[in-house]
Amino acid sequence: MSRKPVCLVLGAGAGIGGHVGKRFAAGGYHAVLVRRSDEEGLGRLVKAIEDAGGEATGRMLNAVEDGAIEDLVIHVERDIGPIEVALFNLGAQFGNRTLEETPNKLFELGWRMTSFALFRLAKTIAPLMAKRGGGKILVTSATSAMRGNAGQHAHAAAIGGRRLLCQSLNAELSVKGIHICHIYIDAAIEAPDTLGRLLGPELFKKLLEEKGGGKDELVIPEKVAETYWHIAHQHRSAWSHEVDIRPHSEQPWWNS
Amino acid sequence: MSRKPVCLVLGAGAGIGGHVGKRFAAGGYHAVLVRRSDEEGLGRLVKAIEDAGGEATGRMLNAVEDGAIEDLVIHVERDIGPIEVALFNLGAQFGNRTLEETPNKLFELGWRMTSFALFRLAKTIAPLMAKRGGGKILVTSATSAMRGNAGQHAHAAAIGGRRLLCQSLNAELSVKGIHICHIYIDAAIEAPDTLGRLLGPELFKKLLEEKGGGKDELVIPEKVAETYWHIAHQHRSAWSHEVDIRPHSEQPWWNS
Amino acid sequence: MSRKPVCLVLGAGAGIGGHVGKRFAAGGYHAVLVRRSDEEGLGRLVKAIEDAGGEATGRMLNAVEDGAIEDLVIHVERDIGPIEVALFNLGAQFGNRTLEETPNKLFELGWRMTSFALFRLAKTIAPLMAKRGGGKILVTSATSAMRGNAGQHAHAAAIGGRRLLCQSLNAELSVKGIHICHIYIDAAIEAPDTLGRLLGPELFKKLLEEKGGGKDELVIPEKVAETYWHIAHQHRSAWSHEVDIRPHSEQPWWNS
Amino acid sequence: MSRKPVCLVLGAGAGIGGHVGKRFAAGGYHAVLVRRSDEEGLGRLVKAIEDAGGEATGRMLNAVEDGAIEDLVIHVERDIGPIEVALFNLGAQFGNRTLEETPNKLFELGWRMTSFALFRLAKTIAPLMAKRGGGKILVTSATSAMRGNAGQHAHAAAIGGRRLLCQSLNAELSVKGIHICHIYIDAAIEAPDTLGRLLGPELFKKLLEEKGGGKDELVIPEKVAETYWHIAHQHRSAWSHEVDIRPHSEQPWWNS
Repeated sequence: MSRKPVCLVLGAGAGIGGHVGKRFAAGGYHAVLVRRSDEEGLGRLVKAIEDAGGEATGRMLNAVEDGAIEDLVIHVERDIGPIEVALFNLGAQFGNRTLEETPNKLFELGWRMTSFALFRLAKTIAPLMAKRGGGKILVTSATSAMRGNAGQHAHAAAIGGRRLLCQSLNAELSVKGIHICHIYIDAAIEAPDTLGRLLGPELFKKLLEEKGGGKDELVIPEKVAETYWHIAHQHRSAWSHEVDIRPHSEQPWWNS
Repeated sequence: MSRKPVCLVLGAGAGIGGHVGKRFAAGGYHAVLVRRSDEEGLGRLVKAIEDAGGEATGRMLNAVEDGAIEDLVIHVERDIGPIEVALFNLGAQFGNRTLEETPNKLFELGWRMTSFALFRLAKTIAPLMAKRGGGKILVTSATSAMRGNAGQHAHAAAIGGRRLLCQSLNAELSVKGIHICHIYIDAAIEAPDTLGRLLGPELFKKLLEEKGGGKDELVIPEKVAETYWHIAHQHRSAWSHEVDIRPHSEQPWWNS
Repeated sequence: MSRKPVCLVLGAGAGIGGHVGKRFAAGGYHAVLVRRSDEEGLGRLVKAIEDAGGEATGRMLNAVEDGAIEDLVIHVERDIGPIEVALFNLGAQFGNRTLEETPNKLFELGWRMTSFALFRLAKTIAPLMAKRGGGKILVTSATSAMRGNAGQHAHAAAIGGRRLLCQSLNAELSVKGIHICHIYIDAAIEAPDTLGRLLGPELFKKLLEEKGGGKDELVIPEKVAETYWHIAHQHRSAWSHEVDIRPHSEQPWWNS
Repeated sequence: MSRKPVCLVLGAGAGIGGHVGKRFAAGGYHAVLVRRSDEEGLGRLVKAIEDAGGEATGRMLNAVEDGAIEDLVIHVERDIGPIEVALFNLGAQFGNRTLEETPNKLFELGWRMTSFALFRLAKTIAPLMAKRGGGKILVTSATSAMRGNAGQHAHAAAIGGRRLLCQSLNAELSVKGIHICHIYIDAAIEAPDTLGRLLGPELFKKLLEEKGGGKDELVIPEKVAETYWHIAHQHRSAWSHEVDIRPHSEQPWWNS
């Protein structure tokens, strides 16, 4: 058991998930970092946090498996401590695919990884948080939660539904002291595990050269982690439920 | 084979689905009426249309079954004729249920009946329509597609996702001549099969006495069918993609 | 006095306003057509309606003048007959202008012509309609009512405010039988008086050649007038408050 | 001249404006506090900041007067220093008024105090900020910016337009390094100068007893000021443009 409050991160890669984990560990939380693949990367993340004097635990998990999220929550609460902040950071961006290029299985997987997985997390964790008088559930989301677009059939249906699930959860849970916030990143993120994988190493490198570095034209995970931290610590008289994030150089979805 | 264009109605009960079927049959379409239960009711609907001089075919179908929608489209196109208008009228309103009262199975069923079923319909029918230069896909929706609310976890996630799916479909298909319209009914509908079943006979009767009759304070399916007819016949220079419907006596969702 | 119900059109040029006037005149209304400039064009419009067997009256009016709208309503009601349908078709599209290119006067004029003028119309006409048990106020709007954009400072502030004014009016007036509908045209309109003037004759001609004719890639006013007619005649159990319009070939504002 | 960066607050009463001023003064800014009435209250605010070791200047100003905002900006920049953060905190909540109870003058005043005044501020200050490579314009807004409602004709039209003005400004100015954020407070604020005046002392006291104190059921200005501070200091790779604020105990506008 840890003496620190727990911050659980579902989807803790080298992008927003990992940096939120680091930020909360630096701020006095025990970070429980969960991801599906790249155990080595996860190990490095845990070590980096520990080297900086923080506490962290890594877990490998396939969130879409029956019972996986439910068991995780139970084990973390029993073995490490009460989860004060849960970051749901699973996405299902499959790139642009026409209707024909979107198999039923993919459409279903998108829903299982985003909408259904958040439902299962909330169903398991909300009663525990409510019993303790409160908690925070932060959800990382994306432009496709705001409007559908060509090639986004699976993605928009999944995370558009998830956005309204966040609103439903908020309507029931905020009065129980549970702060739910839907944070949507309305631009490309400087994240090697997700965008990097989607684009491939060469294109990703080119993008970094073009928009990264001192230009700050991609969302920098380390920087956006400050906003997650802020939201998780807003006073309960002044909570935000939906927050958009994009670089200075990008037009919002409603303009582009 | 019919010489008339086909209007396929998925979810053809005694409410909007049935009345849209009647309206299109009266306007010169062959109505293919599909529902899951109440074969007798379906028979009566077909007979009513035929008695009025129209053409109709009834089909019993469980839309969530693998391949059911896909087979239906193929059979209708082969045996009856090309589908010019498809009305997706399946909903998944389970009443108000707290998170605890919403089992995983229900959450999944909601998604299967609304979001996934529309995706499967579109995937099957859009290529056929595109090859013919066009077609219409109308989707009946509800308030929970616009915002989540307490007790609406399953419903809002499902049809909120479906709304953005409609936008994704539109972004890909409108340029192929396929008109997609998301029509959301933002009030109670005078429909014995759905609202009537949800409330039970006594409450439904009471509601009818209170708001029905000459007061027109419930959405009357026969009347709203005129708007479906209008949308399906808008000139292609002036299509609507999203239309709200409520009685004069009701405040919109953003006010109530 | 006319024996026909009156349809008042504020902003009756050769685009949507004029064609809605014609459509309602053809459907049995006395069309009262009001515009600020081009008395000759107005005369031709009235004549065209009369030649087709309809009734129409033309009025020149500068809507932003103190008392002008108020007097108009009083005179029409006294001299011609009760206004059953009022179409507010005044816009204030000044083209794209940077902040620097937008003088205070222009910003104010935009507001006076759209938001304030509708407020004044509603304030004058709503009590009369309410006393008679109902009426219809249709408002033609545009993409900038949905989201601001570069160069649209004056336009978006004016008609974005007007959109919410429509919602406020609806919240108070629908229960009094007054149907208010905000119809936003989310694309270029084949209208010589407005788009034609904005672009100049050459560019407008080029645009017509590119997108008009049989391609139907501009909104054709005559066609969209059918939707105005439909909305004004929706049964009071099934009213729409907001309807979008665009050609098959255009992406909606949320995608482009 | 001050050596500190300047934070200009238009609408610096005892609520959000005053507390944001205090927060920025505590964080190293020179707070320029501007309001229309209650010079004594303004003096107390300045003194409180100075007593806490901060820097502040108070100015009395009627923002709707011609040239008033423009002159203010010029004088502050010349006499005190470059404005790094401008908080536009003017509102125009007149309470609930039917259409009949809303005179033209009030409708106009609402627009002048909110939409037009922000336009004038942005027009004056944006070129200066752009020349310096950036700045921040924060706008306090309210529920009526999101949707109209009964009794909110003047308010919703004014601040609904202002919301889209913020989007227009952002579309032009974010690429110039100017961060614009529309922060809408979706609940009652524990502010004696505004809510207190609207309700009168007795009702306000009762409300405080019911929802204030340890219950945190009203938005506490001191607490929400932390979110303003956070937004003004977001890294330029991760800016928010729209943020909602409400207490844990309140349902969002889309649910109530």
